[in-house]
Amino acid sequence: MITSVNNPKVKQLIQLKNRARSRREEDAFVVEGIRMFRELPAGIVKEVYVTEEFLEKYKNLEQLKHFKYEVVTAEVFSRLSDTVTPQGVLAVVKCLHYQKEALFCKANPCLLLLEDIQDPGNLGTMFRTAEAAGVDGIVMSSQTVDVYNPKVVRSTMGSIFRVPFLIVPNMGEMVQELKQTGTTVYAAALKENAMIYTDADYAKNCAILIGNEGNGLKKETMLQADQCVIIPMNGAVESLNASISAAVLLYETARQRAAEHK
Amino acid sequence: MITSVNNPKVKQLIQLKNRARSRREEDAFVVEGIRMFRELPAGIVKEVYVTEEFLEKYKNLEQLKHFKYEVVTAEVFSRLSDTVTPQGVLAVVKCLHYQKEALFCKANPCLLLLEDIQDPGNLGTMFRTAEAAGVDGIVMSSQTVDVYNPKVVRSTMGSIFRVPFLIVPNMGEMVQELKQTGTTVYAAALKENAMIYTDADYAKNCAILIGNEGNGLKKETMLQADQCVIIPMNGAVESLNASISAAVLLYETARQRAAEHK
Repeated sequence: MITSVNNPKVKQLIQLKNRARSRREEDAFVVEGIRMFRELPAGIVKEVYVTEEFLEKYKNLEQLKHFKYEVVTAEVFSRLSDTVTPQGVLAVVKCLHYQKEALFCKANPCLLLLEDIQDPGNLGTMFRTAEAAGVDGIVMSSQTVDVYNPKVVRSTMGSIFRVPFLIVPNMGEMVQELKQTGTTVYAAALKENAMIYTDADYAKNCAILIGNEGNGLKKETMLQADQCVIIPMNGAVESLNASISAAVLLYETARQRAAEHK
Repeated sequence: MITSVNNPKVKQLIQLKNRARSRREEDAFVVEGIRMFRELPAGIVKEVYVTEEFLEKYKNLEQLKHFKYEVVTAEVFSRLSDTVTPQGVLAVVKCLHYQKEALFCKANPCLLLLEDIQDPGNLGTMFRTAEAAGVDGIVMSSQTVDVYNPKVVRSTMGSIFRVPFLIVPNMGEMVQELKQTGTTVYAAALKENAMIYTDADYAKNCAILIGNEGNGLKKETMLQADQCVIIPMNGAVESLNASISAAVLLYETARQRAAEHK
Protein backbone atom coordinates (compact mmCIF):
# COMPACT_ATOMS: atom_id res chain seq x y z
CA MET A 1 0.00 0.00 0.00
CA ILE A 2 1.24 3.48 -0.87
CA THR A 3 1.00 5.66 2.22
CA SER A 4 3.20 8.65 1.40
CA VAL A 5 2.65 11.54 -0.99
CA ASN A 6 6.43 11.52 -1.44
CA ASN A 7 6.34 8.10 -3.06
CA PRO A 8 7.96 8.51 -6.53
CA LYS A 9 4.98 6.82 -8.22
CA VAL A 10 2.64 9.36 -6.61
CA LYS A 11 4.81 12.22 -7.80
CA GLN A 12 4.73 10.82 -11.31
CA LEU A 13 0.92 10.48 -11.21
CA ILE A 14 0.56 14.10 -10.11
CA GLN A 15 2.71 15.15 -13.08
CA LEU A 16 0.51 13.09 -15.39
CA LYS A 17 -2.58 14.74 -13.95
CA ASN A 18 -1.28 18.30 -14.10
CA ARG A 19 1.01 18.51 -17.11
CA ALA A 20 0.20 17.97 -20.79
CA ARG A 21 3.91 17.59 -21.43
CA SER A 22 4.23 14.66 -19.02
CA ARG A 23 1.24 13.03 -20.71
CA ARG A 24 2.86 13.44 -24.13
CA GLU A 25 6.20 12.09 -22.91
CA GLU A 26 4.65 9.04 -21.29
CA ASP A 27 1.96 8.66 -23.96
CA ALA A 28 -0.50 8.12 -21.12
CA PHE A 29 -3.17 9.95 -19.17
CA VAL A 30 -5.21 9.61 -16.00
CA VAL A 31 -8.85 8.54 -15.86
CA GLU A 32 -10.76 8.94 -12.61
CA GLY A 33 -14.03 7.78 -11.08
CA ILE A 34 -16.09 4.62 -11.02
CA ARG A 35 -18.20 5.51 -14.02
CA MET A 36 -15.26 6.05 -16.35
CA PHE A 37 -13.42 3.07 -14.83
CA ARG A 38 -16.30 0.78 -15.76
CA GLU A 39 -16.17 1.93 -19.37
CA LEU A 40 -12.40 1.63 -19.90
CA PRO A 41 -11.44 -0.48 -22.92
CA ALA A 42 -9.29 -3.27 -21.39
CA GLY A 43 -6.41 -3.04 -23.86
CA ILE A 44 -5.31 0.45 -22.89
CA VAL A 45 -5.15 0.25 -19.09
CA LYS A 46 -1.60 0.47 -17.72
CA GLU A 47 -2.04 0.94 -13.98
CA VAL A 48 -4.92 1.11 -11.50
CA TYR A 49 -4.98 2.79 -8.08
CA VAL A 50 -7.74 2.41 -5.51
CA THR A 51 -8.40 3.33 -1.90
CA GLU A 52 -9.32 0.76 0.74
CA GLU A 53 -12.76 2.34 1.00
CA PHE A 54 -13.26 1.82 -2.73
CA LEU A 55 -12.18 -1.84 -2.52
CA GLU A 56 -14.59 -2.40 0.33
CA LYS A 57 -17.49 -0.76 -1.53
CA TYR A 58 -16.86 -2.35 -4.94
CA LYS A 59 -15.31 -5.69 -3.98
CA ASN A 60 -17.29 -7.58 -6.62
CA LEU A 61 -16.51 -5.15 -9.45
CA GLU A 62 -15.70 -7.10 -12.60
CA GLN A 63 -12.88 -4.75 -13.65
CA LEU A 64 -10.97 -5.33 -10.39
CA LYS A 65 -10.62 -8.99 -11.33
CA HIS A 66 -9.04 -8.18 -14.69
CA PHE A 67 -6.57 -5.47 -13.74
CA LYS A 68 -3.70 -5.48 -11.27
CA TYR A 69 -4.19 -2.62 -8.87
CA GLU A 70 -2.33 -0.85 -6.12
CA VAL A 71 -3.93 0.40 -2.91
CA VAL A 72 -3.25 3.95 -1.72
CA THR A 73 -4.42 5.74 1.42
CA ALA A 74 -7.35 8.17 1.21
CA GLU A 75 -4.92 11.00 1.95
CA VAL A 76 -2.64 10.04 -0.96
CA PHE A 77 -5.64 9.57 -3.23
CA SER A 78 -6.93 13.05 -2.50
CA ARG A 79 -3.63 14.38 -3.86
CA LEU A 80 -3.95 12.31 -7.01
CA SER A 81 -7.54 13.28 -7.57
CA ASP A 82 -8.78 16.14 -9.67
CA THR A 83 -12.17 16.29 -7.94
CA VAL A 84 -13.44 17.69 -4.66
CA THR A 85 -15.02 14.40 -3.56
CA PRO A 86 -12.78 11.63 -4.97
CA GLN A 87 -14.41 8.27 -5.60
CA GLY A 88 -11.23 6.32 -4.86
CA VAL A 89 -10.43 4.80 -8.25
CA LEU A 90 -8.02 6.03 -10.90
CA ALA A 91 -6.36 4.43 -13.90
CA VAL A 92 -3.35 5.32 -16.02
CA VAL A 93 -4.38 4.72 -19.60
CA LYS A 94 -2.49 4.71 -22.91
CA CYS A 95 -3.16 7.68 -25.19
CA LEU A 96 -5.41 6.89 -28.14
CA HIS A 97 -3.90 6.96 -31.63
CA TYR A 98 -6.31 6.68 -34.51
CA GLN A 99 -5.56 6.35 -38.19
CA LYS A 100 -7.27 8.91 -40.39
CA GLU A 101 -9.30 6.09 -41.94
CA ALA A 102 -11.05 5.46 -38.61
CA LEU A 103 -13.00 8.68 -39.16
CA PHE A 104 -14.30 7.59 -42.55
CA CYS A 105 -15.57 4.08 -41.84
CA LYS A 106 -19.23 4.85 -42.48
CA ALA A 107 -21.01 6.04 -45.60
CA ASN A 108 -21.54 9.83 -45.64
CA PRO A 109 -19.57 10.53 -42.47
CA CYS A 110 -20.22 13.62 -40.41
CA LEU A 111 -17.13 15.12 -38.75
CA LEU A 112 -16.60 17.80 -36.15
CA LEU A 113 -13.56 20.06 -36.67
CA LEU A 114 -12.36 22.10 -33.69
CA GLU A 115 -9.86 24.92 -34.01
CA ASP A 116 -8.10 26.11 -30.84
CA ILE A 117 -10.89 25.40 -28.34
CA GLN A 118 -9.47 26.45 -24.97
CA ASP A 119 -12.01 25.56 -22.29
CA PRO A 120 -11.69 21.96 -21.05
CA GLY A 121 -15.39 21.76 -20.17
CA ASN A 122 -16.35 22.93 -23.66
CA LEU A 123 -14.13 20.36 -25.37
CA GLY A 124 -15.36 17.50 -23.18
CA THR A 125 -18.99 18.50 -23.68
CA MET A 126 -18.43 18.63 -27.45
CA PHE A 127 -17.18 15.02 -27.43
CA ARG A 128 -20.26 13.93 -25.47
CA THR A 129 -22.67 15.86 -27.70
CA ALA A 130 -20.89 14.74 -30.89
CA GLU A 131 -21.22 11.07 -29.98
CA ALA A 132 -24.89 11.57 -29.14
CA ALA A 133 -25.55 13.40 -32.43
CA GLY A 134 -23.93 10.59 -34.41
CA VAL A 135 -20.64 12.26 -35.35
CA ASP A 136 -18.13 9.83 -36.87
CA GLY A 137 -14.94 11.58 -35.80
CA ILE A 138 -13.44 14.72 -34.33
CA VAL A 139 -10.43 16.61 -35.67
CA MET A 140 -8.70 19.09 -33.36
CA SER A 141 -6.02 21.66 -34.14
CA SER A 142 -2.84 21.18 -32.12
CA GLN A 143 -3.53 24.47 -30.29
CA THR A 144 -6.73 23.00 -28.85
CA VAL A 145 -6.65 22.36 -25.08
CA ASP A 146 -5.09 18.94 -24.39
CA VAL A 147 -7.79 16.31 -24.90
CA TYR A 148 -6.20 14.26 -22.07
CA ASN A 149 -6.58 17.09 -19.54
CA PRO A 150 -8.49 15.50 -16.60
CA LYS A 151 -11.31 18.02 -16.87
CA VAL A 152 -11.75 17.31 -20.58
CA VAL A 153 -11.71 13.55 -19.98
CA ARG A 154 -14.31 13.87 -17.20
CA SER A 155 -16.58 16.15 -19.25
CA THR A 156 -16.66 13.67 -22.13
CA MET A 157 -18.46 11.20 -19.82
CA GLY A 158 -16.67 8.37 -21.62
CA SER A 159 -17.13 9.61 -25.19
CA ILE A 160 -13.35 10.11 -25.44
CA PHE A 161 -13.07 6.31 -25.66
CA ARG A 162 -15.78 5.95 -28.29
CA VAL A 163 -15.40 8.80 -30.79
CA PRO A 164 -12.27 8.50 -33.02
CA PHE A 165 -10.22 11.69 -33.10
CA LEU A 166 -7.18 13.24 -34.74
CA ILE A 167 -4.96 16.14 -33.76
CA VAL A 168 -3.59 18.08 -36.76
CA PRO A 169 -0.99 20.87 -36.92
CA ASN A 170 -2.87 22.92 -39.52
CA MET A 171 -6.66 22.99 -39.67
CA GLY A 172 -6.70 24.90 -42.97
CA GLU A 173 -4.80 22.09 -44.68
CA MET A 174 -7.11 19.51 -43.14
CA VAL A 175 -10.13 21.38 -44.49
CA GLN A 176 -8.56 21.43 -47.96
CA GLU A 177 -7.89 17.72 -47.77
CA LEU A 178 -11.45 16.99 -46.69
CA LYS A 179 -12.84 19.05 -49.57
CA GLN A 180 -10.69 17.12 -52.03
CA THR A 181 -12.23 13.88 -50.82
CA GLY A 182 -15.76 15.20 -51.35
CA THR A 183 -16.61 16.40 -47.85
CA THR A 184 -18.51 19.68 -47.60
CA VAL A 185 -17.08 21.82 -44.82
CA TYR A 186 -19.45 24.22 -43.02
CA ALA A 187 -17.76 26.86 -40.87
CA ALA A 188 -19.68 28.33 -37.94
CA ALA A 189 -19.00 32.04 -38.32
CA LEU A 190 -20.54 35.28 -37.12
CA LYS A 191 -20.51 36.78 -40.59
CA GLU A 192 -23.51 38.75 -41.78
CA ASN A 193 -23.45 37.19 -45.23
CA ALA A 194 -23.24 33.65 -43.85
CA MET A 195 -26.00 31.19 -44.70
CA ILE A 196 -28.59 30.52 -41.98
CA TYR A 197 -27.49 27.12 -40.66
CA THR A 198 -30.90 25.50 -41.25
CA ASP A 199 -30.68 26.34 -44.99
CA ALA A 200 -27.54 24.23 -45.47
CA ASP A 201 -27.74 20.59 -46.57
CA TYR A 202 -25.96 18.14 -44.28
CA ALA A 203 -27.23 14.90 -45.85
CA LYS A 204 -23.96 13.92 -47.61
CA ASN A 205 -20.34 13.77 -46.27
CA CYS A 206 -19.94 16.89 -44.24
CA ALA A 207 -17.90 18.52 -41.52
CA ILE A 208 -18.83 21.22 -39.01
CA LEU A 209 -15.99 23.60 -38.19
CA ILE A 210 -16.00 25.47 -34.86
CA GLY A 211 -13.45 28.08 -33.77
CA ASN A 212 -11.90 29.39 -30.58
CA GLU A 213 -14.23 30.68 -27.83
CA GLY A 214 -12.95 34.26 -27.86
CA ASN A 215 -11.70 34.81 -31.38
CA GLY A 216 -13.68 32.42 -33.54
CA LEU A 217 -12.05 30.76 -36.53
CA LYS A 218 -8.77 31.94 -38.02
CA LYS A 219 -9.41 33.86 -41.21
CA GLU A 220 -7.25 31.52 -43.30
CA THR A 221 -9.14 28.49 -41.99
CA MET A 222 -12.53 30.08 -42.61
CA LEU A 223 -11.55 30.91 -46.19
CA GLN A 224 -10.88 27.23 -46.86
CA ALA A 225 -14.42 26.19 -45.84
CA ASP A 226 -17.08 25.56 -48.49
CA GLN A 227 -19.71 27.59 -46.70
CA CYS A 228 -20.02 29.82 -43.65
CA VAL A 229 -23.15 29.19 -41.61
CA ILE A 230 -24.64 31.31 -38.85
CA ILE A 231 -27.01 30.47 -36.01
CA PRO A 232 -29.50 33.35 -35.80
CA MET A 233 -29.41 35.19 -32.46
CA ASN A 234 -32.18 37.32 -31.01
CA GLY A 235 -31.85 40.07 -28.43
CA ALA A 236 -28.45 41.56 -27.71
CA VAL A 237 -26.53 38.27 -27.68
CA GLU A 238 -23.21 38.65 -29.47
CA SER A 239 -22.26 34.98 -29.64
CA LEU A 240 -23.17 31.57 -28.33
CA ASN A 241 -20.96 29.36 -26.17
CA ALA A 242 -18.81 27.20 -28.48
CA SER A 243 -20.22 23.91 -27.20
CA ILE A 244 -23.76 25.26 -27.63
CA SER A 245 -23.04 26.27 -31.25
CA ALA A 246 -21.60 22.82 -31.94
CA ALA A 247 -24.69 21.17 -30.42
CA VAL A 248 -27.15 23.25 -32.44
CA LEU A 249 -25.30 22.56 -35.71
CA LEU A 250 -24.72 18.84 -35.04
CA TYR A 251 -28.33 18.23 -34.06
CA GLU A 252 -29.55 20.06 -37.16
CA THR A 253 -27.36 17.65 -39.13
CA ALA A 254 -28.88 14.70 -37.25
CA ARG A 255 -32.40 16.07 -37.80
CA GLN A 256 -31.91 16.41 -41.55
CA ARG A 257 -30.36 12.95 -41.82
CA ALA A 258 -33.19 11.36 -39.82
CA ALA A 259 -35.79 13.18 -41.97
CA GLU A 260 -34.12 11.74 -45.11
CA HIS A 261 -34.61 8.22 -43.84
CA LYS A 262 -38.29 8.63 -43.05
CA MET B 1 -9.77 55.16 -1.42
CA ILE B 2 -10.32 51.83 0.32
CA THR B 3 -6.94 50.29 1.10
CA SER B 4 -7.74 47.60 3.66
CA VAL B 5 -9.47 44.26 3.25
CA ASN B 6 -10.73 44.80 6.81
CA ASN B 7 -12.83 47.77 5.72
CA PRO B 8 -16.45 46.94 6.71
CA LYS B 9 -17.68 47.75 3.20
CA VAL B 10 -15.21 45.25 1.76
CA LYS B 11 -16.38 42.59 4.19
CA GLN B 12 -19.97 43.23 3.16
CA LEU B 13 -19.08 42.96 -0.54
CA ILE B 14 -17.35 39.62 0.06
CA GLN B 15 -20.51 38.37 1.78
CA LEU B 16 -22.58 39.54 -1.19
CA LYS B 17 -20.25 37.73 -3.55
CA ASN B 18 -20.11 34.48 -1.60
CA ARG B 19 -23.48 34.05 0.07
CA ALA B 20 -26.91 33.70 -1.51
CA ARG B 21 -28.42 34.54 1.87
CA SER B 22 -26.66 37.91 2.01
CA ARG B 23 -27.88 38.65 -1.49
CA ARG B 24 -31.45 37.84 -0.48
CA GLU B 25 -31.24 39.94 2.68
CA GLU B 26 -29.83 42.95 0.88
CA ASP B 27 -31.86 42.35 -2.28
CA ALA B 28 -28.68 43.03 -4.22
CA PHE B 29 -25.91 41.20 -6.06
CA VAL B 30 -22.46 41.85 -7.48
CA VAL B 31 -21.69 42.32 -11.17
CA GLU B 32 -18.08 42.26 -12.32
CA GLY B 33 -16.08 43.14 -15.42
CA ILE B 34 -16.07 45.88 -18.03
CA ARG B 35 -18.35 44.08 -20.43
CA MET B 36 -21.14 43.58 -17.92
CA PHE B 37 -20.57 47.06 -16.48
CA ARG B 38 -21.19 48.61 -19.88
CA GLU B 39 -24.52 46.80 -20.20
CA LEU B 40 -25.90 47.61 -16.75
CA PRO B 41 -29.35 49.19 -16.81
CA ALA B 42 -28.80 52.53 -15.02
CA GLY B 43 -31.79 52.30 -12.67
CA ILE B 44 -30.54 49.31 -10.72
CA VAL B 45 -26.96 50.28 -9.91
CA LYS B 46 -26.41 50.91 -6.17
CA GLU B 47 -22.62 51.13 -5.82
CA VAL B 48 -19.56 51.01 -8.08
CA TYR B 49 -15.99 50.04 -7.14
CA VAL B 50 -12.97 50.48 -9.40
CA THR B 51 -9.19 50.19 -9.18
CA GLU B 52 -6.86 53.07 -10.07
CA GLU B 53 -5.61 51.03 -13.02
CA PHE B 54 -9.17 50.70 -14.30
CA LEU B 55 -9.80 54.45 -13.96
CA GLU B 56 -6.60 55.16 -15.87
CA LYS B 57 -7.49 52.75 -18.66
CA TYR B 58 -11.17 53.72 -19.00
CA LYS B 59 -11.11 57.37 -18.01
CA ASN B 60 -13.53 58.34 -20.79
CA LEU B 61 -16.01 55.57 -20.09
CA GLU B 62 -19.55 56.98 -20.27
CA GLN B 63 -20.80 54.94 -17.30
CA LEU B 64 -18.18 56.45 -14.97
CA LYS B 65 -19.75 59.86 -15.55
CA HIS B 66 -23.20 58.65 -14.50
CA PHE B 67 -22.41 56.63 -11.41
CA LYS B 68 -20.67 57.61 -8.19
CA TYR B 69 -17.80 55.25 -7.65
CA GLU B 70 -15.28 54.39 -4.97
CA VAL B 71 -11.64 53.55 -5.67
CA VAL B 72 -10.06 50.48 -4.06
CA THR B 73 -6.50 49.18 -4.24
CA ALA B 74 -5.66 46.31 -6.60
CA GLU B 75 -5.05 44.11 -3.57
CA VAL B 76 -8.48 44.84 -2.11
CA PHE B 77 -10.09 44.35 -5.51
CA SER B 78 -8.54 40.92 -5.92
CA ARG B 79 -10.36 39.90 -2.73
CA LEU B 80 -13.66 41.24 -4.05
CA SER B 81 -13.24 39.62 -7.42
CA ASP B 82 -14.53 36.21 -8.42
CA THR B 83 -12.09 35.87 -11.34
CA VAL B 84 -8.41 34.96 -11.65
CA THR B 85 -7.55 38.08 -13.64
CA PRO B 86 -9.84 40.85 -12.30
CA GLN B 87 -10.65 43.72 -14.66
CA GLY B 88 -10.95 46.25 -11.84
CA VAL B 89 -14.63 47.18 -12.02
CA LEU B 90 -17.50 45.86 -9.95
CA ALA B 91 -21.02 47.08 -9.23
CA VAL B 92 -23.58 46.29 -6.57
CA VAL B 93 -26.89 45.99 -8.34
CA LYS B 94 -30.50 45.64 -7.15
CA CYS B 95 -32.06 42.21 -7.64
CA LEU B 96 -34.54 42.02 -10.51
CA HIS B 97 -38.21 41.50 -9.71
CA TYR B 98 -40.50 40.80 -12.62
CA GLN B 99 -44.26 40.49 -12.66
CA LYS B 100 -45.57 37.29 -14.19
CA GLU B 101 -47.08 39.39 -17.00
CA ALA B 102 -43.58 40.37 -18.19
CA LEU B 103 -43.15 36.83 -19.51
CA PHE B 104 -46.30 37.01 -21.63
CA CYS B 105 -45.92 40.34 -23.42
CA LYS B 106 -45.61 38.86 -26.90
CA ALA B 107 -48.01 36.78 -28.94
CA ASN B 108 -47.30 33.03 -28.69
CA PRO B 109 -44.58 33.31 -26.08
CA CYS B 110 -41.96 30.63 -25.68
CA LEU B 111 -40.82 30.02 -22.12
CA LEU B 112 -38.00 28.03 -20.58
CA LEU B 113 -38.81 26.24 -17.30
CA LEU B 114 -35.88 25.06 -15.18
CA GLU B 115 -36.28 22.70 -12.26
CA ASP B 116 -33.44 22.46 -9.73
CA ILE B 117 -30.53 23.19 -12.09
CA GLN B 118 -27.43 23.09 -9.86
CA ASP B 119 -24.43 24.07 -11.99
CA PRO B 120 -23.90 27.86 -12.18
CA GLY B 121 -22.26 27.61 -15.62
CA ASN B 122 -25.21 25.63 -16.95
CA LEU B 123 -27.76 28.13 -15.64
CA GLY B 124 -25.85 31.12 -17.01
CA THR B 125 -25.37 29.47 -20.39
CA MET B 126 -29.09 28.69 -20.54
CA PHE B 127 -29.93 32.38 -20.05
CA ARG B 128 -27.54 33.32 -22.87
CA THR B 129 -28.84 30.62 -25.21
CA ALA B 130 -32.46 31.35 -24.32
CA GLU B 131 -32.13 35.02 -25.20
CA ALA B 132 -30.42 34.10 -28.48
CA ALA B 133 -33.13 31.58 -29.36
CA GLY B 134 -35.85 34.16 -28.74
CA VAL B 135 -37.22 32.89 -25.42
CA ASP B 136 -39.63 35.35 -23.78
CA GLY B 137 -39.04 34.39 -20.16
CA ILE B 138 -37.44 31.88 -17.81
CA VAL B 139 -39.09 30.29 -14.79
CA MET B 140 -36.86 28.63 -12.19
CA SER B 141 -37.79 26.43 -9.25
CA SER B 142 -36.64 27.83 -5.90
CA GLN B 143 -34.19 24.88 -5.57
CA THR B 144 -32.32 26.09 -8.67
CA VAL B 145 -28.83 27.47 -8.00
CA ASP B 146 -29.06 31.17 -7.07
CA VAL B 147 -29.38 33.17 -10.28
CA TYR B 148 -27.35 35.97 -8.63
CA ASN B 149 -24.36 33.69 -7.96
CA PRO B 150 -21.36 35.50 -9.57
CA LYS B 151 -20.58 32.53 -11.82
CA VAL B 152 -24.17 32.42 -13.09
CA VAL B 153 -24.21 36.17 -13.69
CA ARG B 154 -20.92 36.01 -15.60
CA SER B 155 -21.99 33.02 -17.71
CA THR B 156 -25.17 34.83 -18.82
CA MET B 157 -22.94 37.39 -20.62
CA GLY B 158 -25.52 40.05 -19.80
CA SER B 159 -28.65 38.06 -20.67
CA ILE B 160 -29.67 38.14 -16.99
CA PHE B 161 -30.54 41.82 -17.54
CA ARG B 162 -32.53 41.19 -20.69
CA VAL B 163 -34.57 38.01 -20.21
CA PRO B 164 -37.43 38.36 -17.70
CA PHE B 165 -37.46 35.59 -15.10
CA LEU B 166 -39.47 34.27 -12.17
CA ILE B 167 -38.56 32.01 -9.26
CA VAL B 168 -41.43 29.78 -8.14
CA PRO B 169 -41.71 27.47 -5.11
CA ASN B 170 -43.45 24.67 -6.98
CA MET B 171 -42.76 23.94 -10.64
CA GLY B 172 -45.61 21.42 -10.93
CA GLU B 173 -48.13 24.11 -9.98
CA MET B 174 -46.54 26.53 -12.43
CA VAL B 175 -46.87 23.97 -15.22
CA GLN B 176 -50.56 23.47 -14.35
CA GLU B 177 -51.13 27.21 -14.41
CA LEU B 178 -49.40 27.55 -17.78
CA LYS B 179 -51.52 24.76 -19.25
CA GLN B 180 -54.69 26.48 -18.02
CA THR B 181 -53.69 29.61 -19.93
CA GLY B 182 -53.21 27.64 -23.15
CA THR B 183 -49.46 27.05 -23.08
CA THR B 184 -48.28 23.61 -24.20
CA VAL B 185 -45.57 22.34 -21.86
CA TYR B 186 -42.92 20.00 -23.32
CA ALA B 187 -40.81 18.15 -20.77
CA ALA B 188 -37.32 17.01 -21.76
CA ALA B 189 -37.24 13.46 -20.44
CA LEU B 190 -35.21 10.32 -21.05
CA LYS B 191 -38.32 8.16 -21.36
CA GLU B 192 -38.48 5.55 -24.07
CA ASN B 193 -42.07 6.37 -24.99
CA ALA B 194 -41.36 10.10 -25.22
CA MET B 195 -41.97 11.86 -28.54
CA ILE B 196 -38.86 12.63 -30.65
CA TYR B 197 -38.40 16.36 -30.03
CA THR B 198 -38.48 17.26 -33.74
CA ASP B 199 -41.97 15.74 -34.07
CA ALA B 200 -43.47 18.18 -31.55
CA ASP B 201 -45.07 21.44 -32.69
CA TYR B 202 -43.69 24.56 -31.05
CA ALA B 203 -45.43 27.17 -33.20
CA LYS B 204 -48.00 28.29 -30.61
CA ASN B 205 -47.54 29.31 -26.90
CA CYS B 206 -45.18 26.76 -25.50
CA ALA B 207 -42.75 26.05 -22.70
CA ILE B 208 -39.70 23.80 -22.58
CA LEU B 209 -39.17 22.12 -19.21
CA ILE B 210 -35.65 20.98 -18.22
CA GLY B 211 -34.75 19.11 -15.03
CA ASN B 212 -31.80 18.73 -12.68
CA GLU B 213 -28.44 17.64 -14.14
CA GLY B 214 -28.16 14.40 -12.20
CA ASN B 215 -31.73 13.37 -11.54
CA GLY B 216 -33.76 14.92 -14.34
CA LEU B 217 -37.28 16.18 -13.67
CA LYS B 218 -39.25 15.29 -10.56
CA LYS B 219 -41.86 12.68 -11.39
CA GLU B 220 -44.72 14.88 -10.18
CA THR B 221 -43.55 17.77 -12.36
CA MET B 222 -43.12 15.55 -15.41
CA LEU B 223 -46.65 14.19 -14.97
CA GLN B 224 -48.03 17.73 -15.21
CA ALA B 225 -46.44 18.35 -18.62
CA ASP B 226 -48.50 18.00 -21.80
CA GLN B 227 -45.86 15.96 -23.59
CA CYS B 228 -42.50 14.36 -22.85
CA VAL B 229 -39.94 14.88 -25.61
CA ILE B 230 -36.61 13.13 -26.10
CA ILE B 231 -33.50 14.13 -28.02
CA PRO B 232 -32.26 10.98 -29.80
CA MET B 233 -28.78 9.90 -28.71
CA ASN B 234 -26.42 7.68 -30.68
CA GLY B 235 -23.55 5.60 -29.33
CA ALA B 236 -23.37 4.85 -25.64
CA VAL B 237 -24.31 8.34 -24.44
CA GLU B 238 -26.72 8.16 -21.51
CA SER B 239 -27.69 11.80 -21.35
CA LEU B 240 -26.78 15.23 -22.65
CA ASN B 241 -25.56 18.16 -20.57
CA ALA B 242 -28.61 20.13 -19.35
CA SER B 243 -27.60 23.34 -21.14
CA ILE B 244 -27.00 21.38 -24.36
CA SER B 245 -30.47 19.79 -24.13
CA ALA B 246 -32.01 23.21 -23.58
CA ALA B 247 -30.14 24.62 -26.60
CA VAL B 248 -31.19 21.81 -28.94
CA LEU B 249 -34.86 22.11 -27.90
CA LEU B 250 -34.95 25.93 -27.96
CA TYR B 251 -33.30 26.14 -31.37
CA GLU B 252 -35.72 23.55 -32.77
CA THR B 253 -38.48 25.84 -31.50
CA ALA B 254 -36.83 28.81 -33.21
CA ARG B 255 -36.33 26.81 -36.42
CA GLN B 256 -40.00 25.81 -36.60
CA ARG B 257 -41.17 29.35 -35.84
CA ALA B 258 -38.87 30.83 -38.51
CA ALA B 259 -40.05 28.24 -41.05
CA GLU B 260 -43.68 29.24 -40.32
CA HIS B 261 -42.92 32.83 -41.26
CA LYS B 262 -41.30 32.00 -44.57
